[in-house]
Amino acid sequence: MKKFLSFQNEENMALFTDLYELTMCASYFDNKKFEQATFDLFIRRMPPERSYFLFAGLEQALLFLEKICFTDEHLAYLEKQGFEDSFLEYLKNFKFTGDVYAVPEGTVAFPCEPLIRVTAPIIEAQIVETFLLNTINLQTTIATKASRVVQAAKGKPVVEFGLRREHGIDAGMKVARCSYLAGCQGTSNVLAGMAYGIPVFGTMAHSFILAFEKEIDAFRAFTKTFPDRATLLIDTYNDVAGAEKAITIAKELEARGYKINGVRLDSGDLAETSKKIRALLDEKGLDYVKIFASGDLDEYKINELLNKDAKIDAFGVGTKMGTSADRPYLDVIYKLSETANRQGIFSPVMKLSEGKITLPGRKQIYRCKDSAGYYTKDVITLADEKTEGEPLLVKLMEKGKLIKKLPELKDVRIAAAENLKKLPEKYKKLTHAPAYPVELSPKLKTLIRELKVKLRKKENSNPN
Amino acid sequence: MKKFLSFQNEENMALFTDLYELTMCASYFDNKKFEQATFDLFIRRMPPERSYFLFAGLEQALLFLEKICFTDEHLAYLEKQGFEDSFLEYLKNFKFTGDVYAVPEGTVAFPCEPLIRVTAPIIEAQIVETFLLNTINLQTTIATKASRVVQAAKGKPVVEFGLRREHGIDAGMKVARCSYLAGCQGTSNVLAGMAYGIPVFGTMAHSFILAFEKEIDAFRAFTKTFPDRATLLIDTYNDVAGAEKAITIAKELEARGYKINGVRLDSGDLAETSKKIRALLDEKGLDYVKIFASGDLDEYKINELLNKDAKIDAFGVGTKMGTSADRPYLDVIYKLSETANRQGIFSPVMKLSEGKITLPGRKQIYRCKDSAGYYTKDVITLADEKTEGEPLLVKLMEKGKLIKKLPELKDVRIAAAENLKKLPEKYKKLTHAPAYPVELSPKLKTLIRELKVKLRKKENSNPN
Repeated sequence: MKKFLSFQNEENMALFTDLYELTMCASYFDNKKFEQATFDLFIRRMPPERSYFLFAGLEQALLFLEKICFTDEHLAYLEKQGFEDSFLEYLKNFKFTGDVYAVPEGTVAFPCEPLIRVTAPIIEAQIVETFLLNTINLQTTIATKASRVVQAAKGKPVVEFGLRREHGIDAGMKVARCSYLAGCQGTSNVLAGMAYGIPVFGTMAHSFILAFEKEIDAFRAFTKTFPDRATLLIDTYNDVAGAEKAITIAKELEARGYKINGVRLDSGDLAETSKKIRALLDEKGLDYVKIFASGDLDEYKINELLNKDAKIDAFGVGTKMGTSADRPYLDVIYKLSETANRQGIFSPVMKLSEGKITLPGRKQIYRCKDSAGYYTKDVITLADEKTEGEPLLVKLMEKGKLIKKLPELKDVRIAAAENLKKLPEKYKKLTHAPAYPVELSPKLKTLIRELKVKLRKKENSNPN
Repeated sequence: MKKFLSFQNEENMALFTDLYELTMCASYFDNKKFEQATFDLFIRRMPPERSYFLFAGLEQALLFLEKICFTDEHLAYLEKQGFEDSFLEYLKNFKFTGDVYAVPEGTVAFPCEPLIRVTAPIIEAQIVETFLLNTINLQTTIATKASRVVQAAKGKPVVEFGLRREHGIDAGMKVARCSYLAGCQGTSNVLAGMAYGIPVFGTMAHSFILAFEKEIDAFRAFTKTFPDRATLLIDTYNDVAGAEKAITIAKELEARGYKINGVRLDSGDLAETSKKIRALLDEKGLDYVKIFASGDLDEYKINELLNKDAKIDAFGVGTKMGTSADRPYLDVIYKLSETANRQGIFSPVMKLSEGKITLPGRKQIYRCKDSAGYYTKDVITLADEKTEGEPLLVKLMEKGKLIKKLPELKDVRIAAAENLKKLPEKYKKLTHAPAYPVELSPKLKTLIRELKVKLRKKENSNPN
């Protein structure tokens, strides 16, 4: 019997990689290149309309580094792909033994800042690239987007509703996790609720209404089952007529000592309709009945709705947040910044490709704050420099072992909210936010200038 | 020890669902609503710049339907969420027992066409909604995008390179599968190569070049390991200087009886650079050395490069295809189209929400062709109607069991290519393609008209 997820388990993640990681490593091995190297994972540039990143995905990245290994099945497959026996023998005993520094999940971050810094024998540091990029890209993309949606809702609850359009199973799980981390109240994804302890929310679909002869029959059936917590979807046929039926039901329930929770609108002009429905409800003394809105929402639409004084108490946000639809990826990259020679002495390296220059050397980030605790600027320095501010990169792994307990999701969520509070408002505008200042330290600038000259000279003068 | 994928296995997929599926089903159960119903999975509208869908994801959907079940852990979690014991007892023995019709994977499809039609007791048909949407959305989105990229490349090979930016693990696997299905030559994803038998490709990264003192040292080291199949990345410092070093290496290898495979460009003006590099290579008699291009490519850029007569032999396409970046989702929905009464007599249903009207009744799609075999139009009919053309929906599942062997991926790939060939060129234009004609049969139109009148009358007149 075929299995539809059979290859997706922790044990297989070593092969969840681009082939070139393995060909490069085979050649490092063949050329006896076992020296240490440092790689930085960072985001090259800020996408249009974003002004900060909310860093997420570290937990999965670190657990991967602790577990990566190659199975007999992997090695048999790689042999068929033409890899040499001696390299396969090396992979058989492969473990990640490096040191890892990273900024904590929930950190507010900016372009070019090293978010994860890996120092390990070059084969080990190289072979883990694809997985690290894959998990940080997805989770930071979504946490950043969700954080914008939560900011736009100005304290009104947002629930993540996008499971049906998120990109497969892992995305469905991670989007729920990262949206919650970024400040959403919960998710519609029941498995994520069970797996991560995230509150789960759900109402009813149009199909439920259509399954009954009359709309009010559907409301009556649903509140029979959930008399004390029903949210009734009122726009299947006509939203005002639907609201009137919901009012009838609410009054029947009141007579029995129950209260419905709310009504949901999922189509049409949500600002105008919500005002009409609010007035209808209030007129009947149903001011406790909440209006829940969904349908193609994102940070821009929520902002517009609140500007129009829509009478909406909570938002269900799906596809556009769950796929980060206006920008479904970040330019997350993982670049070599230094290599050691056989004596273990490290030298900084950088690439010069057009538009793709990297920052050389082992680095740290310092975050400066004003007297009220608000972020003022960041400085990227060399790791052995000291400057004002608080260093953001923390050592989390030593010789391949985690040396700190990873925080619980709920604590990451609290930290993210506190961090976002310290980012001044102007940097959180949904559009046309100014760029937060990120400086390079004088030492780093000097190193870059010197390396550029040296590299251009070397690479243009002597082809051998 | 925490596991980073622990909740993602086939057994858990019953809870990989929106909570409202379960609340609705609890209420159907509580109200003793066990009648049959039919749901259609379809795509509501054509996104901007798309002109057809390439249907994919059916295999995973059907395997899910065969396997769905609730574990003791699920039931314990649902109990904590307040579900009643009697419903949990029902879930304990839950199996999907319905009939499923679908169009084959690799079918060229259009808006509003029912792609999967599920007829089952309403609880069973409802509870599977989220998973079906999740898997069909991802796979059809990507297959459609990849098919556009392959069309744009006009016969030149395209390799799927996007693993690092695809949305997590399941997406990484499914994007490789669907890109291959849509005509890509292969993928960089080694695990997908092993899992699905897709050819895997890889070259080298800039970090490999930077890990050596000189660029040419890196080329020499790599070709020591892979003397007969190396593709050298030449733009780390300067592409022309890089090409000159690649030529030196190619000549050294020729002297030893080997040939390099190609060079890769990953930055800059690919059209101009590729012409310069082609001339350099040809001048040295290296016309067998291929030029491979990557870096932010999609169907629009490939089209532009070929229009500029770029000298590129093959394309590596990553992020923009692997996330379908210009449109990372489709409006895939799953809607109730008929319900049976207790006597088993089915009646058609439809919803009237603003801009979200659905097609009532059990339906079929007929595809018409001209004498040369090219598609001319589709007609959506009621299932018991006959019309010209070939019916597209095929019965695949009966009483919850697969009744047909699912085709191998390589055969789906061949079928997809043949289907796309039969779609006239004008409908495959990358921009401003005309809409392919999809008609509703006269009987279906009459049914819609009658139902609208009936529903508007009923819902507006009598609130009880």
